[in-house]
Amino acid sequence: MLDLYHYEPSANSMKPMLCLKEKGLEFESHYIDLHSFEQHSPEFVKVNPNGQVPALIHDGAVITESTVINEYLDDVFPQVPLRPRDPAARARMRIWSKFVDEYFCPALSMHGWNALIPGIVERLKKGEFDQLIERIPLKEQRDKWKTAATHSFTEEQLADAKRKVGVSIERMEQMLAQSSWLAGADYSLADVNTISMVTPVPRFFPEFLNEKVAPRTMDWVRRMSERPAFKAAIAMGRKPPPAISK
Amino acid sequence: MLDLYHYEPSANSMKPMLCLKEKGLEFESHYIDLHSFEQHSPEFVKVNPNGQVPALIHDGAVITESTVINEYLDDVFPQVPLRPRDPAARARMRIWSKFVDEYFCPALSMHGWNALIPGIVERLKKGEFDQLIERIPLKEQRDKWKTAATHSFTEEQLADAKRKVGVSIERMEQMLAQSSWLAGADYSLADVNTISMVTPVPRFFPEFLNEKVAPRTMDWVRRMSERPAFKAAIAMGRKPPPAISK
Repeated sequence: MLDLYHYEPSANSMKPMLCLKEKGLEFESHYIDLHSFEQHSPEFVKVNPNGQVPALIHDGAVITESTVINEYLDDVFPQVPLRPRDPAARARMRIWSKFVDEYFCPALSMHGWNALIPGIVERLKKGEFDQLIERIPLKEQRDKWKTAATHSFTEEQLADAKRKVGVSIERMEQMLAQSSWLAGADYSLADVNTISMVTPVPRFFPEFLNEKVAPRTMDWVRRMSERPAFKAAIAMGRKPPPAISK
Repeated sequence: MLDLYHYEPSANSMKPMLCLKEKGLEFESHYIDLHSFEQHSPEFVKVNPNGQVPALIHDGAVITESTVINEYLDDVFPQVPLRPRDPAARARMRIWSKFVDEYFCPALSMHGWNALIPGIVERLKKGEFDQLIERIPLKEQRDKWKTAATHSFTEEQLADAKRKVGVSIERMEQMLAQSSWLAGADYSLADVNTISMVTPVPRFFPEFLNEKVAPRTMDWVRRMSERPAFKAAIAMGRKPPPAISK
């Protein structure tokens, strides 16, 4: 029995959703509404003490961290393999996924938080935000909520994060010049782990992702979007992509 | 044929050194002196375009990122397995290694850079540092060198990094309360990937790592230190641990 706790098919939640769909695995979906702060509720913190989605429960074991969840799924359900058989290509898959986790995702995420969180917080009653903040288990997450809610990311931080998004797309172009998928000839977790970071880029920074400057990445997005598993994961969404005011 | 480019048996270089020794694998050692900026030399940048150690060459493939190198070694040379067989324990190994890479290591590293880099830079001739900085491939690394060289980490940054080192040791205590090794009953890459981050802690922050506040981690350090592979890796060092002036 597989239970996945997730938000929309976007950001880190998308990664195991797409992986499960690629593998054709049945799973119980538990939708956690981040806009209602459900990830910090006492019920969910019992599942993941860090108060973060996604989280997978399988045979009583709780697996967290989207990149690790996907390696776990490939360890346990190797029938549709999503890691290259060649160890060097597998290392390339892991190096790229690590780059996405440590560089690309945090950079894009800062702009996502900056654009979206103030609107979420404004809808709350006076004092409610302070109570909700206190429930957040990780200090780093509490600080990020407070910073985003008060529009306190500095211009310098936002400019540097924007630059990193540009660097990330440039690196993708370089990778896709070498092979049709990110870790080589085979579609792999490198691709699964990256698509949800790439799809928001045109909304935020169209100058980084268009046919002229990043044709290979544009083609990769098209090929990803056509996959039945991608469509099935997207169909699990409940909300349209958020509008951003810049 | 295995070629490892590494610095001292400390920080990220220690991770593949210890892994190779645990597996009893012969390898060609290429010592890269970080204090002489050899990692940014044109010769080494041909090996790793990011200008960072460690890097492994095996059968013509270059593998970078110490955590990935160790998974690669376990993929290719599984005779002495260093990943738990149980997938949930394996996920725990990966979650912990990710935490070390993303949280523990950067926090400790900031204090290492702050304590050591100014002394390295002072020994250079005037103008030499600027030339050396220009060779660094990654902007983030260039910025870190400049910040460290001019003692420009803020008090707030250093205090937060110190706090994170404390949190990291607390988490280790919690992990080691559950099982004798970090990912469960089996010694694994979680342990291999962590020892070089723990051994400098008593020099920097003795208040975080002593028999009173962290007895399980102290015991784990002793058990690690007694392993023949650990002794063999340490024996490859050329310099005593650096003195720090605080």
